[in-house]
Amino acid sequence: MKNTYAIIMAGGSGTRFWPLSKQTKPKQFLDVLGTGQSLLQMTFDRFAAFIPHENIYIVSNDRYEQIIKEQLPMLKSDQVLLEPFQRNTAPCIAYACYKIASKDPEATVVVSPSDHAIFKEKEFYGAIDKAINHVKGQDKLITIGVTPNRPETGYGYIQYQDHNDSDVKKVKTFTEKPELDLARKFIESGDFVWNAGVFVWNVVAIQKAFSKFLPDVDEAFNQLRSSYYTSDEKERVNHAYSQCKNISIDYGIMEKAKNVYVVLGDFGWSDLGSWDSLYDVGTKDSDGNVIEGNALVFNSNNCLVKGPENKLIVVNGLDNCLIAFHEDALLVSRKGTEKQLRAIVNEVKLKKDQKFL
Amino acid sequence: MKNTYAIIMAGGSGTRFWPLSKQTKPKQFLDVLGTGQSLLQMTFDRFAAFIPHENIYIVSNDRYEQIIKEQLPMLKSDQVLLEPFQRNTAPCIAYACYKIASKDPEATVVVSPSDHAIFKEKEFYGAIDKAINHVKGQDKLITIGVTPNRPETGYGYIQYQDHNDSDVKKVKTFTEKPELDLARKFIESGDFVWNAGVFVWNVVAIQKAFSKFLPDVDEAFNQLRSSYYTSDEKERVNHAYSQCKNISIDYGIMEKAKNVYVVLGDFGWSDLGSWDSLYDVGTKDSDGNVIEGNALVFNSNNCLVKGPENKLIVVNGLDNCLIAFHEDALLVSRKGTEKQLRAIVNEVKLKKDQKFL
Repeated sequence: MKNTYAIIMAGGSGTRFWPLSKQTKPKQFLDVLGTGQSLLQMTFDRFAAFIPHENIYIVSNDRYEQIIKEQLPMLKSDQVLLEPFQRNTAPCIAYACYKIASKDPEATVVVSPSDHAIFKEKEFYGAIDKAINHVKGQDKLITIGVTPNRPETGYGYIQYQDHNDSDVKKVKTFTEKPELDLARKFIESGDFVWNAGVFVWNVVAIQKAFSKFLPDVDEAFNQLRSSYYTSDEKERVNHAYSQCKNISIDYGIMEKAKNVYVVLGDFGWSDLGSWDSLYDVGTKDSDGNVIEGNALVFNSNNCLVKGPENKLIVVNGLDNCLIAFHEDALLVSRKGTEKQLRAIVNEVKLKKDQKFL
Repeated sequence: MKNTYAIIMAGGSGTRFWPLSKQTKPKQFLDVLGTGQSLLQMTFDRFAAFIPHENIYIVSNDRYEQIIKEQLPMLKSDQVLLEPFQRNTAPCIAYACYKIASKDPEATVVVSPSDHAIFKEKEFYGAIDKAINHVKGQDKLITIGVTPNRPETGYGYIQYQDHNDSDVKKVKTFTEKPELDLARKFIESGDFVWNAGVFVWNVVAIQKAFSKFLPDVDEAFNQLRSSYYTSDEKERVNHAYSQCKNISIDYGIMEKAKNVYVVLGDFGWSDLGSWDSLYDVGTKDSDGNVIEGNALVFNSNNCLVKGPENKLIVVNGLDNCLIAFHEDALLVSRKGTEKQLRAIVNEVKLKKDQKFL
């Protein structure tokens, strides 16, 4: 896989797992699943199984440079792309693709988030392999679609056009976070899949798409061609970012381009977007509790309890609750209150010392 | 009040407020009510308002010597009576009464627990004053009875005999922790009050009662007459305790003696015997939540939240729950599960490191 590259996006600063995740250490850098590895490390290892280390690039924010070097010490500085500020996925992907293209014009890249969970790696590799083979020398943009198992309203959906037996299907529409009624119809119709945010293309095709649909972004990163892998890169990238608007790759390119295809996969995927999703993917005891850390749980069902080893947590008589203790903050909440929790964490930001956030 | 003394019993090692209370620092030494004072300090101050400091004695366990000296630095060593081990209230009270009698044969003593709450001090002083005046030179044992406001099954009840207007009524029966049906009948009947565990008598009367009903205890502490307030006291007291059986003053004397009277009072009393009782006496916000510490509570009702200032606690969507964080342990429980919690803390003792207990 000499010309195959992975681009792992790890710049998010979300606090959806507060108090576990904080602004100084968001979700992708945490051992959210209790495996002993952060989600970023798990993502890296997933790609390192079939892509050489030196072909794996991380795009993140300046402030996470140190934590990335600690978690992935095998990476060279050239492989850690640091954004001066977040401009959503389009500039992030452009930066990495244009940089790789400047060195390897025949590169095929797999773009992936760093904060999702994949439980069936073999099936994931199968889907990625199909996609890589399909984009070689082709002017096609491929997104990976996950077979849905419920009318989830928190995900994006991809509708595909052709119902033949081909492994690669033409995309008809993208729909971000539908209402429940619509999500149910999507599931019933059978031609919708979840958008995993994983993309596969060759660098020629994606540069062509940028020049057509986001010419400003194309120009900003094309100008830097002679500066990638040099000591000028950092300063020039910072300048390029100041010229880019905030736009996602989905909205900026995927929803507009005509050459977008989807490869279907059923690889046990979760975007781990909330405490509830962490409960869903967790290993449950006979009472349906997911327990991580030094905890004793009595007379309780369907709870998620997560704390450190050096603190004892005792729970009694609770159903459908979330108890998360981390460092100097404790969250105790009813489950299924994802939207409330987002508003609450914002309120905490206003009311409390930033050290808690 | 020259011949008036207070004996404050502070030897209990209960863990009913775990994780707030621990074996190394039980309830009486804690600022359970969030007033800035421990319950022991509050009890001391209550008596110091009308009894000279030098007439206030504390009976506790050897292991709490240091904490008592820290919390009540004005006390002399002679006023801090240390038991080598717990033998319930009869030996504890005998030790203090016989010691005081050896110095002041005309002493009148008020015996009190150190771990209860009294919210109407004026009414409390009124009841104590009546009792003290009544026992002067009289062979009478007085217990203070609290006007009940609910059929509480966790308290002891005193039935009194005479329904005249006298402030001091003869006691008919004692009943410890009745079933709910019986407690309801007690309340309906109107001649039952709660046993606050506060006693008033002169030292002649109580020594006479010990010699009649608990002659072994009488002998053990009478023998020490010449040793109180000397360097021999500690060693001889340790020996006396080894000869005493474990017996309460209620069971050993009050339920058997014929000269037992009750002074009624309505002074906002709680034995603070459980987290639920702490919620009951706490100051509630408009949603019925009692919140102490650095906590933000959303969409929740009738919860008790107690934590330290240096930890942030966020609660969402809970009703009737108890959340208590202290040092390295966290308890999250449904309220009204007092018996379960006692069993749970015992189980925690078996399963977890003692540092958590």
